[in-house]
Amino acid sequence: MYDTIHDAIQASNLNNGHTILVGGFGLCGIPMGCIQYIHDNGYHDLTVISNNCGVDDWGLGILLQQKQIKRMISSYVGENAEFERQYLSGELEVVLTPQGTLAEKLRAGGAGIPAFYTPTAFGTQIQEGGFIIKYKQDGSKQGEILTQSKEVRVYNGKSYVLEESIVGDVALVKAWKADKYGNLVFRGTARNFNPDCAMAAKFTIAEVEEIVDLGDIKPEDVHLPGVYVHAIVKHNAEKRIEKLTVEKPKRSSGTKLAGAGSEAQPVVDDKKRAAQEVRDKIAKRAAKELRDGMSVNLGIGMPTLVSNYIPDGMSIMMQSENGLLGMG
Amino acid sequence: MYDTIHDAIQASNLNNGHTILVGGFGLCGIPMGCIQYIHDNGYHDLTVISNNCGVDDWGLGILLQQKQIKRMISSYVGENAEFERQYLSGELEVVLTPQGTLAEKLRAGGAGIPAFYTPTAFGTQIQEGGFIIKYKQDGSKQGEILTQSKEVRVYNGKSYVLEESIVGDVALVKAWKADKYGNLVFRGTARNFNPDCAMAAKFTIAEVEEIVDLGDIKPEDVHLPGVYVHAIVKHNAEKRIEKLTVEKPKRSSGTKLAGAGSEAQPVVDDKKRAAQEVRDKIAKRAAKELRDGMSVNLGIGMPTLVSNYIPDGMSIMMQSENGLLGMG
Repeated sequence: MYDTIHDAIQASNLNNGHTILVGGFGLCGIPMGCIQYIHDNGYHDLTVISNNCGVDDWGLGILLQQKQIKRMISSYVGENAEFERQYLSGELEVVLTPQGTLAEKLRAGGAGIPAFYTPTAFGTQIQEGGFIIKYKQDGSKQGEILTQSKEVRVYNGKSYVLEESIVGDVALVKAWKADKYGNLVFRGTARNFNPDCAMAAKFTIAEVEEIVDLGDIKPEDVHLPGVYVHAIVKHNAEKRIEKLTVEKPKRSSGTKLAGAGSEAQPVVDDKKRAAQEVRDKIAKRAAKELRDGMSVNLGIGMPTLVSNYIPDGMSIMMQSENGLLGMG
Repeated sequence: MYDTIHDAIQASNLNNGHTILVGGFGLCGIPMGCIQYIHDNGYHDLTVISNNCGVDDWGLGILLQQKQIKRMISSYVGENAEFERQYLSGELEVVLTPQGTLAEKLRAGGAGIPAFYTPTAFGTQIQEGGFIIKYKQDGSKQGEILTQSKEVRVYNGKSYVLEESIVGDVALVKAWKADKYGNLVFRGTARNFNPDCAMAAKFTIAEVEEIVDLGDIKPEDVHLPGVYVHAIVKHNAEKRIEKLTVEKPKRSSGTKLAGAGSEAQPVVDDKKRAAQEVRDKIAKRAAKELRDGMSVNLGIGMPTLVSNYIPDGMSIMMQSENGLLGMG
């Protein structure tokens, strides 16, 4: 156990140029205290493996702002305008990785498996190579560093891609509770990517909300055994919500809102409306594939719209590993 | 949910010649009700994947007795005399698999990964091939079916073996609690191999001690999501202990036991004593590798003796995935 994040980071021997693994999904389950420390102390040329890269002013986004990240290995980076700017201008290297593959690369790294075959990405640019990791800085929109093609092998008539695992110098994870041996418990969807990152690093720092006595966490309830955790530090950072959605105030049909003319309509851009109609159409069509009793895994974006079009009387089990369904 | 094991097995379409995955470790965490049903109903020519094969009269051992198993893919099969007899006489096919590799092959099968590289078994007969899966039945002690060599690849200067995953027709798992959606909680070391088997089969039957209401299992406490479970049945089979060890009655040094002559010594076979001395010597030597603060994973057999020779004042975290340390 360490009293401060400073002590924990010092113990990890984190240095410029290191590879760090950062748990969480979006702004949920991120080790914000450690990220802030790295920001404040100016570590640079970092390779960061994390599903996302925060938003402009929170999460890993604050390291981007200061250009402390040299290379980002991520899956979903759509919430960060500075990320896009740095990537397209050749300031930031990006290795886009399918989400499940990213989780599995970390999990494999932690399990001592150097490589594995997965069906994901077969036949795409991720497998065929040529994806631009780094743009030239001359404005030519050409790549300076490109991905190589990945080996393919067929098992039982299906093609699979060989993916190598990820091992990092330091993992920064956020947990709910720890005991002094480093056994960890995560809360809800804050578990995303955290155990995988913790297992895959040479040194793992767990930033936790609460440190409990030995025995308070029952063996069955341990999400990550302490053998993977090298430093524990208690730190309660602010928890931000990426996209806060609240119920709209109800407007009874018979009354007019003060100030609203009788013909007033919400101003909607025609292009946006058309795009929304296409999205709804796709979601409606996808919903027709569902059958009673199915278990359905919904991804981010359009897939979640599918849930709006499940016919009455059909019982579907919806699963989302990302905590998008009500818990996000 | 099914009322009886009969109904659950019927729903699984289990048939002769099928591959079944059976969870548990030794006699702990085994789906004994399902095993008994398969025994009583005479299913045969089964390929069984399980870490162990029970003992002569319990666990998977009862299927062996009736020669219902054609091939066994296991790690540790030393507790079963009939197993040895059938194997050496060419009646039973055996694919011996390192324990971690077996768990990973199931885990990979469940995760959609057809193959992965592991350092385990490199340079052994498991990798080089020629291990006898089936002996000839003519008493010649020669193999009728042998293992093939496995591919090797070097990553960062270290050699790794390519292992293919396992997928089964039906998984039989034993859990502590289930809710009606099939979310499972396992108790203590009874979790061994059960989640991995459950994920790797086309149809999974969970034999559980208790069925609880939806919501009684908190999301954080789910060990295996119900999406992997196709049938739940409540069944409380007898729980046997493979090797019951109880504290020996204390013998105060000043008094003689009634009937014991003054020169009486426990009868110990010289050969056994010599073997024990060698084992102790190896364990003592291994203990010298330990340093204060280490985490040490102990395997079955001699490795567990190492714990007897840790010097006073040294604090070692001992881990055993097999529940051999006090919980076994």
